[in-house]
Amino acid sequence: MPHIQLNNEAPGIRSLVIYRPDTGKSLYELAQALLRAGSPDSTLADAERELIAAYVSNQNNTDFCRNSHSAASRYLFGDRADLVDQVLQSPETAPISPKLRALLTIARCVTADARTVTDEVTAIARAEGATDGDIHDTVLIAASFSMYNRYVDGLATLTPEDPAAYAAMGERMGTLGYVLPTPN
Amino acid sequence: MPHIQLNNEAPGIRSLVIYRPDTGKSLYELAQALLRAGSPDSTLADAERELIAAYVSNQNNTDFCRNSHSAASRYLFGDRADLVDQVLQSPETAPISPKLRALLTIARCVTADARTVTDEVTAIARAEGATDGDIHDTVLIAASFSMYNRYVDGLATLTPEDPAAYAAMGERMGTLGYVLPTPN
Repeated sequence: MPHIQLNNEAPGIRSLVIYRPDTGKSLYELAQALLRAGSPDSTLADAERELIAAYVSNQNNTDFCRNSHSAASRYLFGDRADLVDQVLQSPETAPISPKLRALLTIARCVTADARTVTDEVTAIARAEGATDGDIHDTVLIAASFSMYNRYVDGLATLTPEDPAAYAAMGERMGTLGYVLPTPN
Repeated sequence: MPHIQLNNEAPGIRSLVIYRPDTGKSLYELAQALLRAGSPDSTLADAERELIAAYVSNQNNTDFCRNSHSAASRYLFGDRADLVDQVLQSPETAPISPKLRALLTIARCVTADARTVTDEVTAIARAEGATDGDIHDTVLIAASFSMYNRYVDGLATLTPEDPAAYAAMGERMGTLGYVLPTPN
């Protein structure tokens, strides 16, 4: 049960942005700018951005965010949807590009302790083709999910258990992006 | 030296919001909503909100954010400015209200692992007079500084060493709040 009276039955972050729309507006605009728009010089696809979000949420053990962003990434990857679980299970061996693997390493460092992002780690990503925008967006996706995860878990929001609920969320996120829900 | 070419000489988060104004806008609006406006039923003063931000940044070892938000908190506390260093050095014994101490405990849990925010921890805060809005804002301040700290450290932004630089920032934050800097 949530730690505070949210006055709605929505799951996860949605219950919080309905409860507090003023901070919710910034939180959703940030997600849209990072997971859809991206930096002008970034080469990351939306499916890859969602995968980084799911990867960080998995590292933080936040089930709601991992499951919903995994579902969005699967939806956006289409016939390559299997990649998502392969990356969550074994990022070192999953069949992804060396560039994306290097960016996932940066995301892992940011999530654990951002001071461990070294010149060496960013040089490896750059050598594999990552742009400044890719590095920027990866760092800020990892940092922002270190926030979203804590917000959702710190207030003990509702976490659905039915996989079908997440598949529906993933399709909505993959088609509509991040738009504020209307209070129910 | 920053890990990416930011094309400006501003310190910390300011260099990042100048580099990428679209995410910067959401990040500053979130800070303004959380550190100034607050939830309608919240009892927290702006000086206390800044203190929670400084406390979390201290826990995450992010010097830029700790120093700047400590300075803002000192400015806003006025003749009680000494409280800030007392809390950073010893939150258990600093002369603050039991309510604020209980909220700092919640902030510490969120920062370390938000799944450790238990019903017991929130019940203690509530018994000391914390409202739902206080608990919400504390959780989201701690969560959002877990992001700001990682963003600033993960890209290795400029961290001034001169205390006078932070005193000037603190006064600006305490008077103007969070407004996007214009590119220099």
